Amino acid sequence: MQIATVLGQRTAALRFDDLPPEALHWAKVGLLDTIGVTLAGAAEPAPQRAAMALAAGAGPALVFGGRSRVGILDAALINGVSSHVLDFDDCNNTIGGHPSVPILPGLIALGEAEHASGRDLLAAYVAGFEVETRIARAVHFHHYEKGWHPTATLGVFGAAAAASRLLGLDGERTATAIATAASLSSGLKANFGTMVKSLHVGQCARNGLYAALLARHGFTANEGAFEHPQGFLAVFNGAGHHDAAKALNGWGDPFDIVAPGIAIKQYPCCGSTHPALDAMLALVRRHDVRPEQVVRIQAWIHSRRLQHTNRPAPASALDCKFSLQYCLVRALLDRQVVLQQFEDDCWLDPRMPGLLAKVEVAPYDASQFDPSNHFGGEVKVTLDDGRILQDRVEQPLGRTSSNPLPPELLRGKFVACAGHVLEQARAVEVAAAIERFEAVADVAAFTRMLEPG
Amino acid sequence: MQIATVLGQRTAALRFDDLPPEALHWAKVGLLDTIGVTLAGAAEPAPQRAAMALAAGAGPALVFGGRSRVGILDAALINGVSSHVLDFDDCNNTIGGHPSVPILPGLIALGEAEHASGRDLLAAYVAGFEVETRIARAVHFHHYEKGWHPTATLGVFGAAAAASRLLGLDGERTATAIATAASLSSGLKANFGTMVKSLHVGQCARNGLYAALLARHGFTANEGAFEHPQGFLAVFNGAGHHDAAKALNGWGDPFDIVAPGIAIKQYPCCGSTHPALDAMLALVRRHDVRPEQVVRIQAWIHSRRLQHTNRPAPASALDCKFSLQYCLVRALLDRQVVLQQFEDDCWLDPRMPGLLAKVEVAPYDASQFDPSNHFGGEVKVTLDDGRILQDRVEQPLGRTSSNPLPPELLRGKFVACAGHVLEQARAVEVAAAIERFEAVADVAAFTRMLEPG
Repeated sequence: MQIATVLGQRTAALRFDDLPPEALHWAKVGLLDTIGVTLAGAAEPAPQRAAMALAAGAGPALVFGGRSRVGILDAALINGVSSHVLDFDDCNNTIGGHPSVPILPGLIALGEAEHASGRDLLAAYVAGFEVETRIARAVHFHHYEKGWHPTATLGVFGAAAAASRLLGLDGERTATAIATAASLSSGLKANFGTMVKSLHVGQCARNGLYAALLARHGFTANEGAFEHPQGFLAVFNGAGHHDAAKALNGWGDPFDIVAPGIAIKQYPCCGSTHPALDAMLALVRRHDVRPEQVVRIQAWIHSRRLQHTNRPAPASALDCKFSLQYCLVRALLDRQVVLQQFEDDCWLDPRMPGLLAKVEVAPYDASQFDPSNHFGGEVKVTLDDGRILQDRVEQPLGRTSSNPLPPELLRGKFVACAGHVLEQARAVEVAAAIERFEAVADVAAFTRMLEPG
Repeated sequence: MQIATVLGQRTAALRFDDLPPEALHWAKVGLLDTIGVTLAGAAEPAPQRAAMALAAGAGPALVFGGRSRVGILDAALINGVSSHVLDFDDCNNTIGGHPSVPILPGLIALGEAEHASGRDLLAAYVAGFEVETRIARAVHFHHYEKGWHPTATLGVFGAAAAASRLLGLDGERTATAIATAASLSSGLKANFGTMVKSLHVGQCARNGLYAALLARHGFTANEGAFEHPQGFLAVFNGAGHHDAAKALNGWGDPFDIVAPGIAIKQYPCCGSTHPALDAMLALVRRHDVRPEQVVRIQAWIHSRRLQHTNRPAPASALDCKFSLQYCLVRALLDRQVVLQQFEDDCWLDPRMPGLLAKVEVAPYDASQFDPSNHFGGEVKVTLDDGRILQDRVEQPLGRTSSNPLPPELLRGKFVACAGHVLEQARAVEVAAAIERFEAVADVAAFTRMLEPG
């Protein structure tokens, strides 16, 4: 049996009633978080320019952030860019990237056009998540290290499978969609740090959806597109760097959306800064630390994660997102880490230089954390009265499903993100609707709630 | 200097007045041939289904084969599929594939929207052709042999550069477009033999055009997207399998469209059958051979080319395109090799089995052709009166610019292809307009001639 064939059959067979309660729970978490960060990202230059270049015509699908509605492929692309542009979207250890943004922008647009139910959208999302992470198992982490952007190059399969499921395609047509997606898969890490990074997500969301629509209309593809000597495994990864059996063996036991599950980013900055921020915020809040009391801040994170976050003098808003020092100072100043701290001329705050000078960062050693743990963080704050405050976390809150973000923090993040577009009362209402998303009768009615008032 | 930077500057600097007469000549040949095969392919299932799945909204750009007009990105995609679906489009030895179909569908659509002149379109086409073939030099033929579909994976750069030129972008924005295209490049040979093969061309035409439009709107990308350790050269080809200098050194001396230039396919079947068909048609016409006279047909082509064309009993229309035996019999029966012979139930012609049984094919040996020549063909026909007729060609007509298809055959092919959509008088008129394309004031006025009467 071939990968596209097997995953096509399994996708086509999945029904909402097959979802265990935890899968349903996590699907709603992912949906809530993805809709929030998409609303928050919609006004950024990347999705705005991606939309201008598309010059999309009118259609049934909402462009998040406003009231305009365009064709579903264009909506998948624009909303896909918005969903990833802040790099605030959910993560998954299997894909080594972001599991939901490739899938949901296209699935929501298709759901609007098809007037799909919430139940069907949730089942399709879990199926797409499972497909992209099954394929990730067959190619990782060589695929990641080589320079592909797996959120896009693998996410396109999740997008194709999810859309196929929502369209009700049979196993054979779903396999065709997945095999077609192998020829549309693209995205290079060389373009990280530019607008093209979030474009990767928009493109893969659009391409996966298009692959499903092509299959619906009787397009043909080679179901052996993974295993073929000139197929996805050999061409993207190279001989000796893939294992098809890992994609073929296993499905939904548990679903990947349940374990390892989805990681929710609590702070809108590089994930490598999060462990130290959890510790810093705990200290500051617990001991009511005021900036003027502080004489020294020491922080330790994993050496690999410090490499790209040791930025003692950030000089742009983007730089701030990757500066452990800046983030620690923000936690001290504002007792929270939120989007507004990474906007406009944030790095020019006159309080910054003096406080940045008090921060010392270093990689942790084996006496602090097991070296195999990349997600630890320790912080020590010395006050002017000589007191030394100290805290540490083994991993940041929300990093895995076994250490989940508490519901109130999850909802708080959503309301803050959605607040870029919606009144607070409406944002709370949307969060509540997503918490009972299986009761949504028509996705098109649901998305009308996302339009600004 | 980096590849995107250099090619961006060179593209932006190219003007119509810089084109030598041979480049202008060959650009008009490529334009004529590409428009012809696109009209001929437009009614095929692949572009029809690609268009249904797109559900394109109204816009300025003609969908070849009818009168409807859609957005330029959608037109680039649909017309791109039409242009390649018959595999009758022009070839180029540098790219190891089809040089014009990635570029012209997007360029014509953009030209309609911008009301560009024929001069500007021709200059942009030559620039795009040069860019994709410069990059091909840096990655071939490892890139080809590995399993990428270079028409798409490299053609996307030609499409991006050509559209940038037509939009009048400066060198920096053109470099951004080319660097963006590196993240949109896709297409696997594993999907050959299915509709996805021509979809590759539609996607790359659309993606290259989109990259240029993004750059126009101020999108950012990494100009080092080729050379970066996780960039196009390393990720698509792998260490030791690329040479950036070959892309950087040389431009327009001569332009690649002049030498090695474009090969025009005279027959709508696999190019490997063409040498023997040239010989066979010469014999049959010269000696007025009638089918009932023939007792034996022997044909020799290169062993590598015989591997995929030795099909003594073809069982589908597609099979016929790759059957040397079938093509030779058609040349005998009809004294021409044309599209209609590869349609519908062509392989069920009752005259076929008896004649196929008389055909013997074999690889040639060193006594017949220099073994390094892949393009030779020899044919021997034995008649019932004992006469043996014999002919041979070193390479098929049209294979390189040094052995060009005579103008009357080129025009004949165009009129036959365009005849799928246009009245013959109109097709002749269009051919004449393309022959003086530098006089076209507005591409949008020109494409109105391509609508069926």
